[in-house]
Amino acid sequence: MPIPTVNAIADAALASRLAAAINAKTKPPGSLGMLEDLALQLGLIQRTVRPRIEKPAMLVFAADHGIVAENVSPYPQSVTAQMVANFLAGGAAINVFARQTGCALQVVDAGVNHHFGALAGLTDRKVAPGTRNFAREPAMSADQRDTALAHGQALADALPGNLLAFGEMGIGNTTSAAALMHKLSGLPLADCVGAGTGLDADGVRRKAAVIDAAVALHRDVTAPLDVLATFGGLEIAMMAGAMLKAAERRMVLLIDGFIVSSALLVAARLQPAVLDYCVFAHCSGEHGHAQLLRHLGGRPLLQLGMRLGEGSGAALALPLVQAAAGFLCEMATFESAAVSNRAAGA
Amino acid sequence: MPIPTVNAIADAALASRLAAAINAKTKPPGSLGMLEDLALQLGLIQRTVRPRIEKPAMLVFAADHGIVAENVSPYPQSVTAQMVANFLAGGAAINVFARQTGCALQVVDAGVNHHFGALAGLTDRKVAPGTRNFAREPAMSADQRDTALAHGQALADALPGNLLAFGEMGIGNTTSAAALMHKLSGLPLADCVGAGTGLDADGVRRKAAVIDAAVALHRDVTAPLDVLATFGGLEIAMMAGAMLKAAERRMVLLIDGFIVSSALLVAARLQPAVLDYCVFAHCSGEHGHAQLLRHLGGRPLLQLGMRLGEGSGAALALPLVQAAAGFLCEMATFESAAVSNRAAGA
Repeated sequence: MPIPTVNAIADAALASRLAAAINAKTKPPGSLGMLEDLALQLGLIQRTVRPRIEKPAMLVFAADHGIVAENVSPYPQSVTAQMVANFLAGGAAINVFARQTGCALQVVDAGVNHHFGALAGLTDRKVAPGTRNFAREPAMSADQRDTALAHGQALADALPGNLLAFGEMGIGNTTSAAALMHKLSGLPLADCVGAGTGLDADGVRRKAAVIDAAVALHRDVTAPLDVLATFGGLEIAMMAGAMLKAAERRMVLLIDGFIVSSALLVAARLQPAVLDYCVFAHCSGEHGHAQLLRHLGGRPLLQLGMRLGEGSGAALALPLVQAAAGFLCEMATFESAAVSNRAAGA
Repeated sequence: MPIPTVNAIADAALASRLAAAINAKTKPPGSLGMLEDLALQLGLIQRTVRPRIEKPAMLVFAADHGIVAENVSPYPQSVTAQMVANFLAGGAAINVFARQTGCALQVVDAGVNHHFGALAGLTDRKVAPGTRNFAREPAMSADQRDTALAHGQALADALPGNLLAFGEMGIGNTTSAAALMHKLSGLPLADCVGAGTGLDADGVRRKAAVIDAAVALHRDVTAPLDVLATFGGLEIAMMAGAMLKAAERRMVLLIDGFIVSSALLVAARLQPAVLDYCVFAHCSGEHGHAQLLRHLGGRPLLQLGMRLGEGSGAALALPLVQAAAGFLCEMATFESAAVSNRAAGA
């Protein structure tokens, strides 16, 4: 399966023009903090000194995980399908936040263990009714992985706008994400495993032991695509495909929390320049996320102690991305507004 | 001049009902982090389990400062008036962010050293053309302070909505705010003085020396209202008045950066319960702000390294406040959405 080619955004001449445009605005230099860095990044991604966020879209990928047979979540697997129904009915947190911030929301069945039939509003890309239990065997076949990657690419390719936010739902998927993080980053397992939706300390120990044993079972698996097939979820694989295609199209990728970041880790092993297109929405309260962000070199916009998933952090960060583009496009300059710039030598 | 009476929001019975309503939503308990605490606070302020942000408004107070004669800012005083004109023309950062987040914006001349004449859109509450130089004499008279406090109260009283965001503009006002912080909090001066719009290290030392000498000159001034008159700005006094009235009306107070927080410090010395109504939008990059927030017991929503003032941080945080109210009002419950809650004993 062909992997999209993602080009770096570096462009020294344009970066100079952007820095000059940012500094000409009626504000002390640097006084918009991270929004100034973000404006520069948006300009480089869109190859303009007037970046605009057009038709932002959120794709929420849902799938089930065979690893739940190992008792790694306090919620039953049926909650994945129930939450998909909740998304379609408009009752979940991501619905509220996406409505509020004007982000189009598309819910994708990447591999939920439930037959939805023809459910209005659901994008059916079900590869399988959930992965297999990676404590015993690879989570998916190479064919399933490639199908998921291809669906993700096609979904990203069909979007009309220039920003793609990522969200997910899948009972058990922090276990998959922690395994991917450990295998692909080389960070100690203890840094990667957290409470997920709310395991107690015993539960976290059990989850870590399950992953530890699975990593030992699959110890010979090292290539990123093989690691993805062995430990990944179908929603994670589909997100990785969507990320690579969106970056190839020079879209802005708005990265949510721990699971989405684990998909990005896979994508970045395949095409490192995908990171140039990423805006990191928030640092999740999930134990491994701060460390994973550091590993990816990502500075999160929000730190609200959230750990819900669904793309909730990404939806909440969208106005900040729009603000970064907005100040660069809409603010007056010292010259146009006839405002005195700082006194020389002061 | 009468100071409004501000009542505490504590209500154990309502707090229990709010906590139950928050935990009934389709999400793991606590997974919306700070937004859950914020939703609880909004409910207590509005005395309802269904809080709503209606007609949010931003008041931006502008004034000049006699202390600029001591060379405490890299920008000339004329920039205050020029930026007011920029606000009215829609070209400043606060215009962009308030437009984007749907926050009504009202610009108030509390004491700018410029005769604007009849300038469309400007709310003229000019008490004086700037304060006097507090390095030599009190910044304002008791009458001027009381007039500013009264104007602030009347402006807050006239607002149609239930959230008031605060912003300010005034060359030299970080010097005034640092002096107020030092006098009213008792924190060491070095913790209170920062670079403002961009002083270099020598400039910060000069600014600290100016404040240190002024504090010695006015060493007998200790009562909060006297401290305000001696070191304060007219915009700071007007904000303090608006805060007290808004809290009396049980509005949400959205607190911006260092200057706005210094006004809140004054207000809280007069009516400590005003803090119950405050949402802290962000932690500014200005040196003293993190410490001032700790002193006030405020947890900021955003930490973007911004240090612009104008209410820019408050405008950017508004969507988060709306999100907190939104999830509580609009999300489905486990029961209404037929989603299984966590397994007992898991």
